[in-house]
Amino acid sequence: MRNPNQVLTAVIMAGGKGERFWPKSRMRCPKQFLSLTDDGETMLQKTVKRVSGLVAMEHIYIVTNAEYMQLVQEQLPEIPAGNLLAEPVPRNTAPCLALAAAVISKRCGNATMIVLPADHLIRHEGICSDVLCRAAAAAEETDSLVTIGITPTYPETGYGYIAFSRAKNLPHGVYQVDSFKEKPDIETARCYVNSGNYLWNSGMFVWKTDVFLTAVEQYLPEAFAIAMEIQSACDTPDFDAVLQKRFPDMPSISVDFGILEDAERLCTIPGSFGWDDVGSWPALKRVAKTDTNGNYRDGDIITVGTKDCVFSGREKLIAAVGLENIVVVDTADALLVCDMDAAQNIKKITEILREQGRGELL
Amino acid sequence: MRNPNQVLTAVIMAGGKGERFWPKSRMRCPKQFLSLTDDGETMLQKTVKRVSGLVAMEHIYIVTNAEYMQLVQEQLPEIPAGNLLAEPVPRNTAPCLALAAAVISKRCGNATMIVLPADHLIRHEGICSDVLCRAAAAAEETDSLVTIGITPTYPETGYGYIAFSRAKNLPHGVYQVDSFKEKPDIETARCYVNSGNYLWNSGMFVWKTDVFLTAVEQYLPEAFAIAMEIQSACDTPDFDAVLQKRFPDMPSISVDFGILEDAERLCTIPGSFGWDDVGSWPALKRVAKTDTNGNYRDGDIITVGTKDCVFSGREKLIAAVGLENIVVVDTADALLVCDMDAAQNIKKITEILREQGRGELL
Repeated sequence: MRNPNQVLTAVIMAGGKGERFWPKSRMRCPKQFLSLTDDGETMLQKTVKRVSGLVAMEHIYIVTNAEYMQLVQEQLPEIPAGNLLAEPVPRNTAPCLALAAAVISKRCGNATMIVLPADHLIRHEGICSDVLCRAAAAAEETDSLVTIGITPTYPETGYGYIAFSRAKNLPHGVYQVDSFKEKPDIETARCYVNSGNYLWNSGMFVWKTDVFLTAVEQYLPEAFAIAMEIQSACDTPDFDAVLQKRFPDMPSISVDFGILEDAERLCTIPGSFGWDDVGSWPALKRVAKTDTNGNYRDGDIITVGTKDCVFSGREKLIAAVGLENIVVVDTADALLVCDMDAAQNIKKITEILREQGRGELL
Repeated sequence: MRNPNQVLTAVIMAGGKGERFWPKSRMRCPKQFLSLTDDGETMLQKTVKRVSGLVAMEHIYIVTNAEYMQLVQEQLPEIPAGNLLAEPVPRNTAPCLALAAAVISKRCGNATMIVLPADHLIRHEGICSDVLCRAAAAAEETDSLVTIGITPTYPETGYGYIAFSRAKNLPHGVYQVDSFKEKPDIETARCYVNSGNYLWNSGMFVWKTDVFLTAVEQYLPEAFAIAMEIQSACDTPDFDAVLQKRFPDMPSISVDFGILEDAERLCTIPGSFGWDDVGSWPALKRVAKTDTNGNYRDGDIITVGTKDCVFSGREKLIAAVGLENIVVVDTADALLVCDMDAAQNIKKITEILREQGRGELL
């Protein structure tokens, strides 16, 4: 059980570009600001909802790119303006979380911090909430960096994996992280899943700000120094200027690679709540509601002899005949038709558009 | 050589519904009134051009459904208004050609009549023109019904076939028709093509009006009687009223089935000029210009790892990734994505739309 006096905060990372969701996701309005499911809620709004039962609104922080600040304000009017942190440039997740931890630590002391990416989908939100709560308790009790691991259900090659094991000194249901594994090939993924010793790396974390900042100091001392400068200016009139000036000097590195892979006090709590990072269009077929033929449908869709497809449209009728494993995404100015197994090549289209100077389509 | 005093006319059948070209082909503007290739000419305009070197404009007739008369007038202002014949209801090709023959016979006597469907594509128009000229000579010399047969280049299952053989009494290069064969299965089609004794039935014919009308009288006496009533009214103020009143009583039957299959003096001239009936979207890949990966492109198209597809778009960008054998047709209010091998099921979409009362999309 958690100590009710310990402040619980949440940091939602909403700075992604969502390029693999082109053409619906655009530079000006990436994936996390879109509703990819048919309920009208954007992924960012879903993420706030995810923690809103655990964390007071005044303790929910959003870190995003400066150019998305207006989108965040529009979609989340309930979050205090001071909790929206604008990165002047993208510097990956380690600097993003160092910034958030520095600000929270100044305002709330050694608070607990739940870290969530803004662009994941979770089918069983209630179970997720319970796991996050247990992770918070474990982070507080053990002064560890806690990662949420996902019990894998199939050999996904698009996720990183966490090798875990039991450790005597850890509370019940909390495991030691032995190592992080990069995205595996299919053979290796099968071994991981069959062994029972691996979890998916969800990118969701829980820790106390002091524990995290100590780790930043140890593994990314330069980033720590900058974070401390920004912290000093926090809630002073200089804040924006200092952030603007110093944040770009942060090293561009992920929290996994820059800190967690080396960290000593690192543990994991396995969860199983229909999590998906929705890395690209084909993922919607896995995580969102489909028809009896396994087709994901958003829009005015008529299918004949069609299965395991993803359709994302608008007002215009989409008629599909004899398709299997195809993604169709129709927007006002661009239409994508893609074989599921080639989804990683969607970025080649955006590269071509960039070369052709057709920025309005990016 | 043809007798230069014998009047040569052409009848273009432009009454089809083009349903297999949905969603670009619509009830209000079917396939023959569209430009399916990228040169801006509609299929009907191409068909007129096809015979315009052989036949004077004043002798080119268009038979179409009454509701398409305005489209025909817009697309063919050079054809005399009196040569546009409006069927009050569709009654298949035998009544269509009986009507045309009756009108031409009244105006020009026993003229020669080249019959062309308005919705075919021909790659080598010059060769086609030469074959039609030879067919006209043969029809005039032998008083036969002459069909243009196409030397088959692969075992197409979507065409009817003509079994032919040599006959002593026929001119050089003209063959006797032994029988018509319905669309075969793939095994049978392979046998036909390998035997060398079969041609594709192109739906293009040449005959003298009296020869044809005699055959109509013999095999479809009811249709003949109505055609004669209409002929009597031709070029009188009663014409429209009689056509309106009597044409609907014509039996609905094709010229192949109703007349040619039984006809005695029937011969064929084989041609090889890149003919295609463009029966459905996949045909464009065969007959129109494609890129080096075999993709037909009409519109703003970017492809990555994509081959043997058909793209028909408008202003909107179509991005294709990892596709093979897929048809993508984008229109203002409907988008079709279809596997080539399932193209025959496009009509199921239009059936569903009809059931749903969405006539505006048909």
